[in-house]
Amino acid sequence: MSDQYKFILDENKIPKAWYNINADLPVPPQPVLHPGTKEPVTPDFLSVLFPMSLIMQEISPERWIEIPEPIREVYKLWRPTPLMRAVRLEKMLDTPAHIYYKYEGVSPVGSHKPNTAVAQAWFNKEAGTKALTTETGAGQWGSALAMACNFFGIDLEIYMVKVSYHQKPYRRVIMQNFGAEVYASPTDRTQYGRALLAQTPDSPGSLGIAISEAVEAAATSGGAKKYSLGSVLGHVLLHQTVIGLEALQQMEMAGEYPDIVIGCAGGGSNFAGFTYPFLHQNFTAGKKTRVIAAEPASCPSLTKGKYTFDYGDTAAMAPIVKMYTLGHTFVPPGIHAGGLRYHGMSPSVSALVEHGDVEARAVKQLATFEAAVQFSKAEGIIPAPESAHAVRVAIDEALACKQNGQGKVIAFNLSGHGHFDMMAYDAYHNQQLEDYEYPQALVDEAMTHLPEVKM
Amino acid sequence: MSDQYKFILDENKIPKAWYNINADLPVPPQPVLHPGTKEPVTPDFLSVLFPMSLIMQEISPERWIEIPEPIREVYKLWRPTPLMRAVRLEKMLDTPAHIYYKYEGVSPVGSHKPNTAVAQAWFNKEAGTKALTTETGAGQWGSALAMACNFFGIDLEIYMVKVSYHQKPYRRVIMQNFGAEVYASPTDRTQYGRALLAQTPDSPGSLGIAISEAVEAAATSGGAKKYSLGSVLGHVLLHQTVIGLEALQQMEMAGEYPDIVIGCAGGGSNFAGFTYPFLHQNFTAGKKTRVIAAEPASCPSLTKGKYTFDYGDTAAMAPIVKMYTLGHTFVPPGIHAGGLRYHGMSPSVSALVEHGDVEARAVKQLATFEAAVQFSKAEGIIPAPESAHAVRVAIDEALACKQNGQGKVIAFNLSGHGHFDMMAYDAYHNQQLEDYEYPQALVDEAMTHLPEVKM
Repeated sequence: MSDQYKFILDENKIPKAWYNINADLPVPPQPVLHPGTKEPVTPDFLSVLFPMSLIMQEISPERWIEIPEPIREVYKLWRPTPLMRAVRLEKMLDTPAHIYYKYEGVSPVGSHKPNTAVAQAWFNKEAGTKALTTETGAGQWGSALAMACNFFGIDLEIYMVKVSYHQKPYRRVIMQNFGAEVYASPTDRTQYGRALLAQTPDSPGSLGIAISEAVEAAATSGGAKKYSLGSVLGHVLLHQTVIGLEALQQMEMAGEYPDIVIGCAGGGSNFAGFTYPFLHQNFTAGKKTRVIAAEPASCPSLTKGKYTFDYGDTAAMAPIVKMYTLGHTFVPPGIHAGGLRYHGMSPSVSALVEHGDVEARAVKQLATFEAAVQFSKAEGIIPAPESAHAVRVAIDEALACKQNGQGKVIAFNLSGHGHFDMMAYDAYHNQQLEDYEYPQALVDEAMTHLPEVKM
Repeated sequence: MSDQYKFILDENKIPKAWYNINADLPVPPQPVLHPGTKEPVTPDFLSVLFPMSLIMQEISPERWIEIPEPIREVYKLWRPTPLMRAVRLEKMLDTPAHIYYKYEGVSPVGSHKPNTAVAQAWFNKEAGTKALTTETGAGQWGSALAMACNFFGIDLEIYMVKVSYHQKPYRRVIMQNFGAEVYASPTDRTQYGRALLAQTPDSPGSLGIAISEAVEAAATSGGAKKYSLGSVLGHVLLHQTVIGLEALQQMEMAGEYPDIVIGCAGGGSNFAGFTYPFLHQNFTAGKKTRVIAAEPASCPSLTKGKYTFDYGDTAAMAPIVKMYTLGHTFVPPGIHAGGLRYHGMSPSVSALVEHGDVEARAVKQLATFEAAVQFSKAEGIIPAPESAHAVRVAIDEALACKQNGQGKVIAFNLSGHGHFDMMAYDAYHNQQLEDYEYPQALVDEAMTHLPEVKM
């Protein structure tokens, strides 16, 4: 074991291939179904929204998919990201555990999202895409894709949830700074948006509505625009595996190997990006690392949802996939971890939980902020509220080690900093936040709206 | 020359000593005068505000001052910071110049300020200080010192300019998150604040007022509290030299040596921190690097001020030092680069400009934001508005190289990210910003209020 704090890699150690977990999934991937016919979709159907190169990644059985050099060149602006040993936190907790965190907040927009944004922008550029559409909630994904499209000269229109557009302007300005057009959703730019505004002129918007608008804008553009998504899909998770592949090298530098790896999970992208390379070691190299997905108790798809076929969006316009879902009609409460407010979960993460390869744990909001504040007082970095869910589980595991006298090695992904989320911390410090657990009765009700699928 | 982008050092390469330019100053340091008697002050006088260890650093003639190991331990949380070659910016500018930037925005609070905050907190802790006072404008310094005091268990009270307290809450919340008490200045906690509020109940505050309150709070505490300053003083600049000492090692990794080094200058701390180690090479190793201080045209102490004795604060309560000054009664306009809004300049920076070792250049606000946006589109990172002044000068020098066909090596300090300053970018993109040049007549008027000093 090293006595260093920080494990940094040269830029030539940025992985040259992404890890595709499809090659190692213990259960066969389930088909993606058309929202209307409920029959498996063809690549052609998806090609309205995505370039064929990304669709091929989505269904590829290859274990390793080469990272094109122009993407690695952009990664070099902030990658490899540091792996840190949280020795000050260990001392504060008085635990025999060793705690490591991979810090993705050093990217120019402060989160892990550019790992796939840059890849998606480049593959679109290569396919001749001139313009992309996407949606964003608080703006973490939108700001990442705006930066990426700027690098490759692609126009970008972003449907940003209206309430965030007005209440959280900082990330909106980042998107605009990179040249993206940002619209407060619902807008009058789409049929879906206009119909919605006719019914509810003062709608604050939602991520589901914004997805529907962004998808419609691309699908009805006559091929002029493609659509880009920041989580859930296989190719998105694939691109994020640079995180874990770097972390594997860095743990080797540290002279330790994790007994437990943890990521927060909303759609699944940062969780998968960090943990899948460790799962690969479990599957193929006899390692027995415990893998934990930390989700909010207010949006507990993995711990209270059902593993079944459901629509990817609220409006039932997106394809149907097999996943853990709270029901696509689920309306998440307004907790501050905007990035974890999705009714479903990535199909591969869902399959791994179902099969027992991944543990899921729901954590409550107040305990999450408590952990984040404790972490910041020890390590300096103020975590994004999403990342704080992973911090909570890491601290809980370290405290369990203290109780049991076990010196386990715990590693988690700190997917972003909280500099844009300080008002959530303000609310926490002023006792304005509350815990919220999604009532089982409402989950049960949402389950009555699942699509009828004959699979 | 390397073909790498990023030059990173192992944590054991964090410097073991700070560089004290007092040892190499081409002109003898001028005495610090008492604001009342206008006679040179003794260390005892200063010891009301500062621990003796920091006062000794202030007047030390030693070239190298050891960095205590507990300070290096905390530095390891984010240091060494990366040195980046801005190849994408070079291509965008189509310049034969090589452009490098040292990026201090990776610190937990997003700027270079923790380099001295951690040092000051530790030396105070060693001296038995239980509580510190300080002032802050937009909060860059306050958030850094709050983090540092948290690490060493020192109480901190911060006088934050009232208008920023209300309009820029994000950094205030960071300070509070680390346990600092933050007050909107002017407050009713000090005699000076109460007198001011009696006259002007709705005063928006100013950095000068906040300094006076923080100094008074420490000076009248009967020894219970010391005072801490984030720039201008010699020991503050000294602590920042870790930046340039790392950069020297990293330029060696890059296989190049800078022809030009650039830092933005308000009080002088990030400028000195980055450039003094290169000046050391000029003084002692026959190097001929041009050293440029970039200041705002709206607060042009180096380019329009006078090199003379003046008070360090607005209220004429702080010691008198010899420096470039616009007059302590100078009221800076509300430009967004809050950190560069000081009427004077660090005495050592002033002496070096006067002696011709450092060039000073004033840049206008709109051109500064234009450069910052261009930089962000090339490199991803959105600079703090203060740092953007250095970006402007670096781009201007690179464009001059293009015109002259000269392949110079240019290095600048990117002292912080702009994630807390996105509303300034919003104002820039919406054409709500204007250039402002401080009129010479007002500088001349302010000069009539200089203290009468017999030196």
